[in-house]
Amino acid sequence: MQGQGQGHTVLRPWQVLARRLVADRWPWMRLWAEDILLPDGRVVEDFSIVEMRDHAVVVAVTPDGRIVAERNYKHGPRRVCLGLPAGYIEPGEDPLLAAQRELREETGYAAASWEHLGSFTEDGNRDCGTAHLYLAREARRVAEPDAGDLEEIEIVLFALPDLLAAAHRGDLAVLSSAAALALAAVALGTPTDC
Amino acid sequence: MQGQGQGHTVLRPWQVLARRLVADRWPWMRLWAEDILLPDGRVVEDFSIVEMRDHAVVVAVTPDGRIVAERNYKHGPRRVCLGLPAGYIEPGEDPLLAAQRELREETGYAAASWEHLGSFTEDGNRDCGTAHLYLAREARRVAEPDAGDLEEIEIVLFALPDLLAAAHRGDLAVLSSAAALALAAVALGTPTDC
Repeated sequence: MQGQGQGHTVLRPWQVLARRLVADRWPWMRLWAEDILLPDGRVVEDFSIVEMRDHAVVVAVTPDGRIVAERNYKHGPRRVCLGLPAGYIEPGEDPLLAAQRELREETGYAAASWEHLGSFTEDGNRDCGTAHLYLAREARRVAEPDAGDLEEIEIVLFALPDLLAAAHRGDLAVLSSAAALALAAVALGTPTDC
Repeated sequence: MQGQGQGHTVLRPWQVLARRLVADRWPWMRLWAEDILLPDGRVVEDFSIVEMRDHAVVVAVTPDGRIVAERNYKHGPRRVCLGLPAGYIEPGEDPLLAAQRELREETGYAAASWEHLGSFTEDGNRDCGTAHLYLAREARRVAEPDAGDLEEIEIVLFALPDLLAAAHRGDLAVLSSAAALALAAVALGTPTDC
């Protein structure tokens, strides 16, 4: 164990006693209600769980050190904002292959070197799917974008400190993009002025 | 504009034509279905939006440079994992005050210096609430924890590189904790070996 603990708690998982489908809006989401037995014997009824598909997010760095970002309207934050190439993982698809596919479809870029930055549950209590975050180095434009999404997307290249500053002030608006960008900054070890 | 654009798209927001409440499980979540007019004239019916309360996440650093982490069972990732002090913001509560309250309640720590790392929408398409991320310096234990949550929590102090390594390998499991930790690492400018 690398961390220094201050307690001696035995941590035990919750146990799901029953599970009911409240709303089925797949492939977008399913809402579940779960009855849960806590370790101390209490029962919590109707705990809400939001099932969503996993998605992949890519921090693609060009040979001259710029990040391939997107500017588009996102309906979560309800505004035009900056973000990173990202998309849902298809059923049975490897997250890395999904990341590579989304980068190429949304931006027309391909990259020679890929690194996994981590995979994280979107919501600690209710799930909301898993974000798989990647760093792609030596990214070069090899084709025209062909996203086929609902969004109009503008591709914009940013120096890393400028995109970190955009995250700080809220112009880069979505949590999985912010997480991927900051983890990539740590992995790249680049000095920043943020 | 700091980024270099490659397109000349005029980016326009979506317009919500109608909105129906599908499931009301407040204060935990509300599921909405929206009919949306896209900028190109297409209409998307029944777009799912998940309304959740905002939450605050704290990267608290002790005077000797360690991060105050928590180990507990989280029902989103469905396992015992590492995370950061975090909690829902009460109605009308300032996010910073919520962050300070949650740090004290969950860990017994208080901090002299607070910095906003950014605020991010949890899900780019469906909302899922906003995470407000904070860096707290000079954090010291001033009281016993008194969380009153459903979870048993163990407080653990980590060196920053060790907690970043835990995020990389999935032991720190939740996206908002990972985002806060990596943004704090950038803000602290600490060399890491991840």
